[in-house]
Amino acid sequence: MGIVVVGTVAFDTVETPFGREENVLGGSATYFSTSASFFTDVSLVAVVGEDFPQEHVTFLQSRNIDTTGLQRIPGKTFHWSGRYGYDLNEAETLDTQLNVLMDFQPELPESYRDSEYLFLANIDPDLQMKVLEQVEKPKLVACDTMNFWISSKPEALKKVLQKVDIVVINEGEARQFTGEANLVKAARQIIALGCKRLVVKRGEYGVLMFTADSVFAAPAYPLEEVFDPTGAGDTFAGGFMGYLANTGDLSEEGLRQAIVFGSVMASFNVEDFSLNRMKRLQYKEIQTRFASFKALTSFRDISF
Amino acid sequence: MGIVVVGTVAFDTVETPFGREENVLGGSATYFSTSASFFTDVSLVAVVGEDFPQEHVTFLQSRNIDTTGLQRIPGKTFHWSGRYGYDLNEAETLDTQLNVLMDFQPELPESYRDSEYLFLANIDPDLQMKVLEQVEKPKLVACDTMNFWISSKPEALKKVLQKVDIVVINEGEARQFTGEANLVKAARQIIALGCKRLVVKRGEYGVLMFTADSVFAAPAYPLEEVFDPTGAGDTFAGGFMGYLANTGDLSEEGLRQAIVFGSVMASFNVEDFSLNRMKRLQYKEIQTRFASFKALTSFRDISF
Repeated sequence: MGIVVVGTVAFDTVETPFGREENVLGGSATYFSTSASFFTDVSLVAVVGEDFPQEHVTFLQSRNIDTTGLQRIPGKTFHWSGRYGYDLNEAETLDTQLNVLMDFQPELPESYRDSEYLFLANIDPDLQMKVLEQVEKPKLVACDTMNFWISSKPEALKKVLQKVDIVVINEGEARQFTGEANLVKAARQIIALGCKRLVVKRGEYGVLMFTADSVFAAPAYPLEEVFDPTGAGDTFAGGFMGYLANTGDLSEEGLRQAIVFGSVMASFNVEDFSLNRMKRLQYKEIQTRFASFKALTSFRDISF
Repeated sequence: MGIVVVGTVAFDTVETPFGREENVLGGSATYFSTSASFFTDVSLVAVVGEDFPQEHVTFLQSRNIDTTGLQRIPGKTFHWSGRYGYDLNEAETLDTQLNVLMDFQPELPESYRDSEYLFLANIDPDLQMKVLEQVEKPKLVACDTMNFWISSKPEALKKVLQKVDIVVINEGEARQFTGEANLVKAARQIIALGCKRLVVKRGEYGVLMFTADSVFAAPAYPLEEVFDPTGAGDTFAGGFMGYLANTGDLSEEGLRQAIVFGSVMASFNVEDFSLNRMKRLQYKEIQTRFASFKALTSFRDISF
């Protein structure tokens, strides 16, 4: 089993009403792989610059994440700066310095190529396609994307969506991509492109998972303390894919449980800045919160 | 059993991206009582003007709603005009003509006073209090309110909240009332005022029900066709209270089922303008959609 994830490893500078953290560890592949590592083996493909401290690599390795595919090239590491207001829902991007990401050519190490699970985190769809060409016969491929690629490379993105099993996307991006205000219709349109499932992330409102003929709704866990939503989407995807790789159960039931585990992981991640909460998270806590999700959503059936 | 509802009966002029309807039947008490009438006996207290057509009264009576408490006084009926954009989430109020509502003094007919269930729909909190003084020993009282009363009469509103069992409120209004951005904290603060439960309506994102030590999350039913969200909140409350009055089961389990029935009713109501969908709704459809809610939200438990 095990998962390969291709995405970014980054420095983030994040401002929320509760504080500001400069040059902390971030990036889609970082959040994804850390979250998934609670469930399965993870192999990471990303690029960093000469300024990336060994301490962060050591952390990833301490989570048993294979960093063979982490390229280190001349230049500076990708740096994102963002700010959240009191509603903590939408980040305002203050600055994006692509740096080494501009020259990123994802190369899957030989040992990664027979991996059964692949997650294409949010990067240029042309690069996502190049990664797809390097894997043999994965059992499950999922991808994420963002508004920037939807507007700048919609055709390349469509080609990727046709090749993957599951698309994981924000609510606003599903609407943007299809030009359809109604989310159910937007979901049907994206699925009609060729993927089998669409997972729509709605921030504090949870997640909807669509197939051509079913919908599953999971709420976000209601938290009294939300410090930093950065990485919540990738942490969700990591829990979701990690649990699937762990069980190998790709039935509707298995996928629904995976959605809940993804939601559990995201709910922890937002409780502290950067990956601080993930660093001290225990598996026991994941189990307890899964049970809390059950209590949060369950109601007695009625037979009419 | 049976419910008394005090609120508005109105003419609405509504504009959505799908059309415009002028002077159609609306009002919080209308939506609430029609929805509740699928589950229990309903008695209505409201005021209309001389221009209110008998046809609408006949409709309410055809739903077995007791209109003894529907006052008809000189002047024109309350008229609300609003517009929805493509997201259909928030109405923009274009015009409010209070008309006869300015002189409304709710009077409970003698036959209403021993009612066990009472819903105080969104009206002036001073009037809500006057109604509370006219009932004997209700088993359950719930109330709604709106941003206008939160900013203009916060103290009167607090007094009402202390006297009711359940507060039903929009997400934005819960935040506005408490000045607290975090919804869980806002909910705890409102409950601390004296009510036992808080039901937070989140439009297309569903509902959260809080007590001091529990939360229940129900999604909104994902619909491909949403025509007009007007009255969704009151239709929800009608299904919620109607089911409670029908079963008399005020346990956590009973209340959760009632939340789902409320959500079911709201999901039908938005499928057409005004009360058009309610007028042709069959109880069989309510049962089917309750089952769909179960399918929408259920996932297999895990014993660790």
